[in-house]
This record gives sequence, structure tokens and C-alpha cells, in this order.
Amino acid sequence: MRDPTIRVLMMPRDTNAWGTIFGGVLLSHLDQAAGLEAIRNTDHRIVTVAMKEVVFHQPVLIGDLVSFYAETVRLGRTSITVRVEVEAERRGQRPMKVTEAEVTFVAIDSEGRPTPLRTEDGAPPAGVPPWPANLPAGDPL
Amino acid sequence: MRDPTIRVLMMPRDTNAWGTIFGGVLLSHLDQAAGLEAIRNTDHRIVTVAMKEVVFHQPVLIGDLVSFYAETVRLGRTSITVRVEVEAERRGQRPMKVTEAEVTFVAIDSEGRPTPLRTEDGAPPAGVPPWPANLPAGDPL
Amino acid sequence: MRDPTIRVLMMPRDTNAWGTIFGGVLLSHLDQAAGLEAIRNTDHRIVTVAMKEVVFHQPVLIGDLVSFYAETVRLGRTSITVRVEVEAERRGQRPMKVTEAEVTFVAIDSEGRPTPLRTEDGAPPAGVPPWPANLPAGDPL
Amino acid sequence: MRDPTIRVLMMPRDTNAWGTIFGGVLLSHLDQAAGLEAIRNTDHRIVTVAMKEVVFHQPVLIGDLVSFYAETVRLGRTSITVRVEVEAERRGQRPMKVTEAEVTFVAIDSEGRPTPLRTEDGAPPAGVPPWPANLPAGDPL
Amino acid sequence: MRDPTIRVLMMPRDTNAWGTIFGGVLLSHLDQAAGLEAIRNTDHRIVTVAMKEVVFHQPVLIGDLVSFYAETVRLGRTSITVRVEVEAERRGQRPMKVTEAEVTFVAIDSEGRPTPLRTEDGAPPAGVPPWPANLPAGDPL
Amino acid sequence: MRDPTIRVLMMPRDTNAWGTIFGGVLLSHLDQAAGLEAIRNTDHRIVTVAMKEVVFHQPVLIGDLVSFYAETVRLGRTSITVRVEVEAERRGQRPMKVTEAEVTFVAIDSEGRPTPLRTEDGAPPAGVPPWPANLPAGDPL
Repeated sequence: MRDPTIRVLMMPRDTNAWGTIFGGVLLSHLDQAAGLEAIRNTDHRIVTVAMKEVVFHQPVLIGDLVSFYAETVRLGRTSITVRVEVEAERRGQRPMKVTEAEVTFVAIDSEGRPTPLRTEDGAPPAGVPPWPANLPAGDPL
Repeated sequence: MRDPTIRVLMMPRDTNAWGTIFGGVLLSHLDQAAGLEAIRNTDHRIVTVAMKEVVFHQPVLIGDLVSFYAETVRLGRTSITVRVEVEAERRGQRPMKVTEAEVTFVAIDSEGRPTPLRTEDGAPPAGVPPWPANLPAGDPL
Repeated sequence: MRDPTIRVLMMPRDTNAWGTIFGGVLLSHLDQAAGLEAIRNTDHRIVTVAMKEVVFHQPVLIGDLVSFYAETVRLGRTSITVRVEVEAERRGQRPMKVTEAEVTFVAIDSEGRPTPLRTEDGAPPAGVPPWPANLPAGDPL
Repeated sequence: MRDPTIRVLMMPRDTNAWGTIFGGVLLSHLDQAAGLEAIRNTDHRIVTVAMKEVVFHQPVLIGDLVSFYAETVRLGRTSITVRVEVEAERRGQRPMKVTEAEVTFVAIDSEGRPTPLRTEDGAPPAGVPPWPANLPAGDPL
Repeated sequence: MRDPTIRVLMMPRDTNAWGTIFGGVLLSHLDQAAGLEAIRNTDHRIVTVAMKEVVFHQPVLIGDLVSFYAETVRLGRTSITVRVEVEAERRGQRPMKVTEAEVTFVAIDSEGRPTPLRTEDGAPPAGVPPWPANLPAGDPL
Repeated sequence: MRDPTIRVLMMPRDTNAWGTIFGGVLLSHLDQAAGLEAIRNTDHRIVTVAMKEVVFHQPVLIGDLVSFYAETVRLGRTSITVRVEVEAERRGQRPMKVTEAEVTFVAIDSEGRPTPLRTEDGAPPAGVPPWPANLPAGDPL
């Protein structure tokens, strides 16, 4: 059993004008899945630099459960390449591969310049503050 | 006449794969309505700790006007329990009860620990800054 | 106590680049509120033909509970004019009027032509099928 | 390794006025996950009838990867009860349980009446048409 | 050839209960287009104060490509008035005007008071910080 | 002056956990822009089969006005290849290229099989019904 990086149910609000799932919805989840896998390889913040070979094999439909399986396929000094396979499961059918892609990321320092994947001590650098520290605090009603 | 805590019109983007209103949409509004009622009972920030007895009586349809009526049913030292009734009005029909639930909140201090509902002076404590003070300022185009 | 036509809580996803609530979000709810009031005056489907005097008095903030009060102000042979007042309630403050507008609708027949507000027998005409009859039926997973 | 029913990344658009993840977002995914598990037990369409013991243990933050693990815990003649555990994984930390719930569904026939979970021949009844058959066909631009 | 201020494709998630495009969606884009045009005339932050003569000529449908053409029509000491024309292009047809409106903005200083459109040196004042400076920094997963 | 296929304003709801614009949002608009250009070359419905060379040059920020310029670069017997350039305009700065991509589509018949781009008589075939004919008709409130 493979462990999905992201798995989502397709809803009517995800459709395009033809009633099938809008490709942009799939690309959004694919981008998230690739990023989640990539960031495990670095202590820094990352940015997407390229997507290659995004291939769409089959249309996806409302009600499909779509799984994004991401795995790291190459590590450079500052770059990370991730491959994502996308499978759709439809009621009463076996999962089928619907999309696949390869996405490349670069680790960046606090100025946005490429930086080696790991810090010397393995801790996030000062330039990658944990999100909660900066959270705006509000007060409904 | 009862005063609704929240009242919203159901739109096509709120549907599930069967074309009726997605339960998650109703639960989202229900959670908001309960929180809006609860926060009137405390000077602190609150967190949801439990939802009990969420009962769905009827499906809700596109075009329904849905009202969420929340009322406080129990106050503890640090907790607040709110009951929410949800009614849907469909064109040419009387409003009908579609969902009901009971939601429990706890007042928390700036460390996230349970705290008595009211401060001594009745003013929000330092740990509950008004949202606008922290608003990011932007500059479109 | 006035009965709100629509009442909603403002969330972070509703903001513009300056961190205040995006005017388009308010206009969307205002359009819904006006339409909900207008349709009580006719057996037909309606279309919005004009919005007049949309005035914005105050910015709306995240966490505000916003109420849209719509009332019919004029009925023509085929047209309906509705006035909407919008109030925002902020924690610890009295509701304040933030926006107001006047919206005009026309009742249309199944060809999209203006038609008298009421049918002779007070029943929706054949051209206004109830939504549920046409609902696509789906089948998740 | 457990197989998640749904797994999603929390984004800024999912926050409430306090900057943590809006409970309604979690409840929406929870409802989907429970439904996806439940429907494996029947040939019919299902409706949610109740959620019990929805407990929120910890706040969820932007950037958390949230997994919904659903399992069937009880099967009645026409009803299905599913338990969902929700775990959040934060960068550099172990997954922690954030929410759990029990959701009950009923299988319904084409009139909306409760019906035994399985048909005699194990095939979906006429009242559960496959979604694609009814898809509106459009034509952008 | 006119240069559109905003141009968007209408999707199923943009529909109202009648299956045509929800007026609020059009008003949201119209508000953005007017603001984008208005802000070119000032060094300050602006707020919408009024929309006048919003006229809806034709319904907009899923799949339509909708263009918003905004032009400045009046400049006061502190105010800016913008006219927006909205055209929809449908496959195989010529673009048709669907909506038009006039929107008035006021330039405000850091206290929210009306202020002359231009600063003496033509640079944004201290009260209009560039958005990126205040961006929360996060850290997914 | 080039004519943008799509042009949109980036909003807070479009951000990722780092506060910059989520790549999935850009990919969604890019997919729409490519499809809008592609469909001008055929009488049939089209499907995306591949995206190649999606390159991200610069991060996009809240408040940026983003233009998608699509042009047809290759026509096969049944396929269409479109190139999209994406530019972001930031207040007080010149537009800069932020992303580019090449997208390939195939024209399909009503069974989903590849089909020559043009019909003999240049009219849409029976399998491409105009969206409005199939629109669900509803009836709010």
C-alpha cells in the first residue's frame, strides 16, 4: 500500500464548463503534493521553479476520490525534483492513473537566493519563522 | 420572531456529488453561529471543544434560505454550551427544521489555557488584541 | 427588532489586498438579499436590471457580523425595487450602517421577456421548474 | 501504516478570524471522509443522519497536513456508523490527533426512504444513476 | 483594440440557483477592475464610496469569457470616478455588452481621512506600506 | 499592445502558507487561458493532454495584476499546442514575466476519441451541445 501525499474528493464546485473536473483543480493539488514531499529534504523554504511532463491520461469526474502520490527522484546541491502520480478511484471501479508530473524546487535563503538543502545543524534558519509566531490575532464579533 | 445568528442562501457551489447541499457547508455555518453566540458570554478568546448531537432531519437544496438560531444553554466556570437550530425556507413553503446541534466552547487565555469566562473589569485581556491592529497593509497594483 | 434577509460572518478569505473586507463580497451578499426579497413579490423568475445608489459608509473588518436588511420599496407592472441596508456588528460595539443600495428586478417569462408579476392563479408557471426536479444525481466513490 | 481516507494541506484561505484553521473546514473534510467510508458498505445512495462525539483536541494551523482516518464501526439493517480520527502533521513534529468523531448514515431508495444496505444482486439500483450520465455539457468561449 | 482591466472565464462554481452567472460574481470583478483603474490616479490608498448606475443588460452564462474595461471619467481633489463596461464573449458569437457601472473612490491617509490624490513628491506616503513587507512567513508541513 | 487571454487580481485568499501566491492558483488560470486559445482552432470539445516546460521565474504577490497571454504555436491533425506567457504588474513597477508554459490539447468527438480539428461544415457537431440548453433551472426561496 502506498501512502498518498494528498487525497481529495471531487465536488461540483471543482468542475469546468463541460462538467468534468477543471484541470486547474488537479494542478493545484499536484503542486501542493509535490511541495509537501520536497520540503522533507531541506531545512529551508522552497520555491517551485519548473513542472515538466505533466501528462493527463483520463478525465476526472465529480465524486472521484483522487490520490496524489509524490516521491523524491533527484536531489541537487540546492534543488529537489519530485515525481507525482495521480490516481482516481470511482465507485465500483479500480483506481486508475489519471495524471503524472515531475516538479522541481529550489531551496532559498531569507533573501530568496538558492541555498544548500541542509543547514549545518539541521535546524530551520532564522529566515524560516514558524507560521504561528506571525499569526494575526482576531476577535470575531 | 426569532433573530437568526446567521442566515445564508444555498448556491450551486455548495452542493455535493448528489446535487443536494454538502453537509460540510451546513456544519461550517453552524460552527460560526455557535461561536458567535458563545463569545457574547466571555471577555476572552474561545475554542470549540466538542459538538454533540448534530442531527440532520432533512436534505437542504440549492435556493434554500437557511437560518441558524443559536442560544446559550449552559455556562460553566470556563465553558459555554450553545444549542443551534437550523431551518430551511424553500420558495412557497414554510420553514422546516433541517438540522440541530449542541456545541461546547472553552474560554482560553493567551497561552491557550482554560480561563474564567469574565475578566474582573469586563474588558478583553491583553491576550485578545483587536484584529484590525494586526491587519497586514497592502497595496493592490 | 428587524429580521435580516441575510446575515454572515466575515472571514480572512473575504479580504482584499489591504486586509479589509473586499467590496465584492459585500456586493455579492447584497445582491442575494435583494433577490430574496424581490422574489416574494412574483410567481416568476426574476433578473436584476440595475443597482442604484450603492453607498459605502464604513470599511468592514474580519470578524464583523454583517446583516443585510432588504425591503420592497416599489412594485411596477413587471418590475420590483428593493432597498437594502447593511449593518456590521463588531465585538463590544453597536451595529453600524456600512452600506446601502437600491436594486431593481424584472419578472421574466420562459423566453426571458418581461411579464406581469403575478400569474392568474398565483402558481409558478411551467417555465419556472422547481430546482430539485432537474438535479443531477451523482454517486461519490 | 494506516491509509487516510482524505488528506489535505491547510491554507490561509481556511483560517478563522483568529488565524487558526476554521472548524468548519475540518468538519467539511470530516463529513466527506465519513461518507466515503460509509458508501463502501451499500449499493444505495446515503444521507448523513447524525454526528456524535465530535471532539476537538488541538487547534490546527496553516501549513498543517491533515489526515482523516475513517473506519466502519457498526452496520445496521439500513444504517452505517463510521468513526473518523483526524491527525495533523506539522513540519518537524510527529502527527498529533486533533479531532475525532462518529458519524451515522442511512441508505435511502429513490424516494428518500431508508432501505437495506445491499440490493439482492449487488448492483446499484435504478435510483442511483451514475453521475456522468447526467453531466451538463458545456462549451467554453 | 481596447485593453481589458480584468478578464475572466465563467465557471460552474460562479452560478446562481437558476444556472446563470451569479450577479455577485460579476460585481466582485467589476469592483476590482474599477479599483485597479482608480489607483493609478493617486499615491494613496483608496476606498470605494459609491457605485452608481450599475446596469445589467444580459445574463452571463457558464463558459463566457468576460472582460471588464475601466476608464477614469472624473478626478476631484480627493475623489476618482471610474466607468466600467463589461462584455461577454460566447463561443462563435461577437462580444456583447452585459453590464456597465460608474464607481467613485476617495483617496485616504493613514487615519482613513480623505486626502489629496497626489503626494508632493509623488511617492507613496508612510501610511501605505508595500504589502510584501508585512507578509506573514509560514512553513508548510 | 498584446491582448491578454485572462487577467486577474491576486487576493489574500490566493496565498500559500508563506504568504506568496499559491502556484496552483496561477496554474488554474494558465490552464483556462491555454484552453480558451486552443478552442478557437476547432469545432469540437477539447481535452488537455500535456503541459510542458512550465517555468516559474518570480514569485507573485497579493495585489499583483496578472496577465496570461496565450498563442497557438502548432496545429496537428487532431492536436493543438498553445504557449502561455504570464506577466505580473505590481504598483509602481513595470510588468515582469513570472511564468511561461506550453500546453497541448486534443479535439475529441462525443465518444471521447481524437477527431480532426474542423468539421466539414464548420459547425459544432451534435456531441457539443451549447451549455444553456442543459442548464438546470432553479428557483431560489
